[in-house]
Amino acid sequence: VKLSQIGEFGLIDLIARREPKLKSTVIGIGDDAAVLKYQAPSTKGQEKYQLITTDTLVENVHFKLKQTSFFDLGYKTLAVNISDIAAMGGFPTHALVTIGLPKRVSVEQVRQLYNGINKLAGRYKIDIVGGDTIASPKAVVVSITLLGEVEKDCLLTRSRARPGDLILVTGSFGGPAALKFELGTRNLELRTQEARMIAKTHLATAMIDSSDGLVRSVLEICKASKVGARIYEDQVPIAKGATLKQALYGGEEYELVFTVNKKYLSKIMDKLSKVSVVGEIVAKGRRVKLVDSYGRMKALKSGGYEHFK
Amino acid sequence: VKLSQIGEFGLIDLIARREPKLKSTVIGIGDDAAVLKYQAPSTKGQEKYQLITTDTLVENVHFKLKQTSFFDLGYKTLAVNISDIAAMGGFPTHALVTIGLPKRVSVEQVRQLYNGINKLAGRYKIDIVGGDTIASPKAVVVSITLLGEVEKDCLLTRSRARPGDLILVTGSFGGPAALKFELGTRNLELRTQEARMIAKTHLATAMIDSSDGLVRSVLEICKASKVGARIYEDQVPIAKGATLKQALYGGEEYELVFTVNKKYLSKIMDKLSKVSVVGEIVAKGRRVKLVDSYGRMKALKSGGYEHFK
Repeated sequence: VKLSQIGEFGLIDLIARREPKLKSTVIGIGDDAAVLKYQAPSTKGQEKYQLITTDTLVENVHFKLKQTSFFDLGYKTLAVNISDIAAMGGFPTHALVTIGLPKRVSVEQVRQLYNGINKLAGRYKIDIVGGDTIASPKAVVVSITLLGEVEKDCLLTRSRARPGDLILVTGSFGGPAALKFELGTRNLELRTQEARMIAKTHLATAMIDSSDGLVRSVLEICKASKVGARIYEDQVPIAKGATLKQALYGGEEYELVFTVNKKYLSKIMDKLSKVSVVGEIVAKGRRVKLVDSYGRMKALKSGGYEHFK
Repeated sequence: VKLSQIGEFGLIDLIARREPKLKSTVIGIGDDAAVLKYQAPSTKGQEKYQLITTDTLVENVHFKLKQTSFFDLGYKTLAVNISDIAAMGGFPTHALVTIGLPKRVSVEQVRQLYNGINKLAGRYKIDIVGGDTIASPKAVVVSITLLGEVEKDCLLTRSRARPGDLILVTGSFGGPAALKFELGTRNLELRTQEARMIAKTHLATAMIDSSDGLVRSVLEICKASKVGARIYEDQVPIAKGATLKQALYGGEEYELVFTVNKKYLSKIMDKLSKVSVVGEIVAKGRRVKLVDSYGRMKALKSGGYEHFK
């Protein structure tokens, strides 16, 4: 069996089989970040969790150097990790940066890459505490591991959505897909403030970032929460120039997808601008379905963005 | 300026320029692992630090698939990270595993890779709590980030060696270089028990693992501790089949190099078998020099193993 036949998500399941055994592990594989029972001693009585996540970008898989500057590459790699920490309700603290570099890369390009990382690290007060600089025969590779913290009562996972919850999203969808995944810092708005605001309301039941696409994000929440969902196509905020299909399956948006019980909708809408209700959570047996503007149920396309397929 | 002209260590200095700013950062870049002020709530009054390190192995840079099985590759990648945590006096707790895979790799090979990782993770009670599975156009890449813990009074860094200390090592040197860096789990003995034993004596002043070679390891301790050193060539334990040069500069041994004040030598030798005294720490102005069997000082070859050179 070749990798191209099972896809990225099948492989992740391969790893995930080994159950966490340490008491300090709250959540292992399967969410935007792992959740660990560690906290800084300075936390005055308020119980916190530690978050940890990692994301790697590979040349000609996730980006092309013709379209992406080294500065943007560094910025973006840290950004996608920050988005994962934010989607858990937390904030970032420490990063490890590993870069794999072919010999054709110049020192100035490496400096630009770190400038991109450091710009965002400075803005979010992230300490870069380690990493590894290695030779890579062909492709530029940037891999970042990011630590974060979250107050225990602000933690948001994928696994607590319940039937009767509404599905909300920030921003609009399909923009990066319409631009053919061209990367640029200007297009990458992080929803870190919104994520913290949502977490601090204690009203959301589940949250995820939409990096793998809106439909895939809803599917992941449903899988983890053991529920079904309806996505109303005519409610999905579509980015300028994008098609509905790109908005549903495109990915790379780094928006937030979260669930809130119906009765708290107005409370949460008061606190956030540019939030849209795109669907609702239903019982597991009713599966995940799209609903078009005539009210007709439609099956899903094989969801999300998979690198091996 | 091309990368090949400045080398790996120059690049790491490029990153390291940004000083850590968070109170939770005890040690950032520059040791075997970063040291953070986080601890599990279950630690009964005993103050601990958290350790974090990352290491990445790239096909045709760090290993060749003709010589290394996928099982050995997984095992080895986790092993080099465990060695870094051990060199700080600590023990490993949680890992994130990122693998980059070309399409030619089979699912069975990926399973073998995880089997290698899981075997060692099981032995050291490490929870694998996350990671990323990505496509890589050409080279197999395995990157692991490893967390650990260390009791505050057991922490060993590179930076506290003092003139009058002796330089001690576990095991013998030059074996992997003599075998032309061929990897194999059988050759990779980890000195985790010895490292913990050394840490618990509270007698060592500095420690490092010898992954970049014996001379490079002594140089790193000297740089961090602002001291000089003498390495006595005829005291270096040379592996069977290896030359003195391979023992001094070869690397890939994952032995421990540590410093202890002269007066505690017999105390520490009582607790450890297979430990050798290979040199001594001197004042900074006296630099780092090799001493041959006739007592003659010799200059160092450009030390250690650098991937870009």
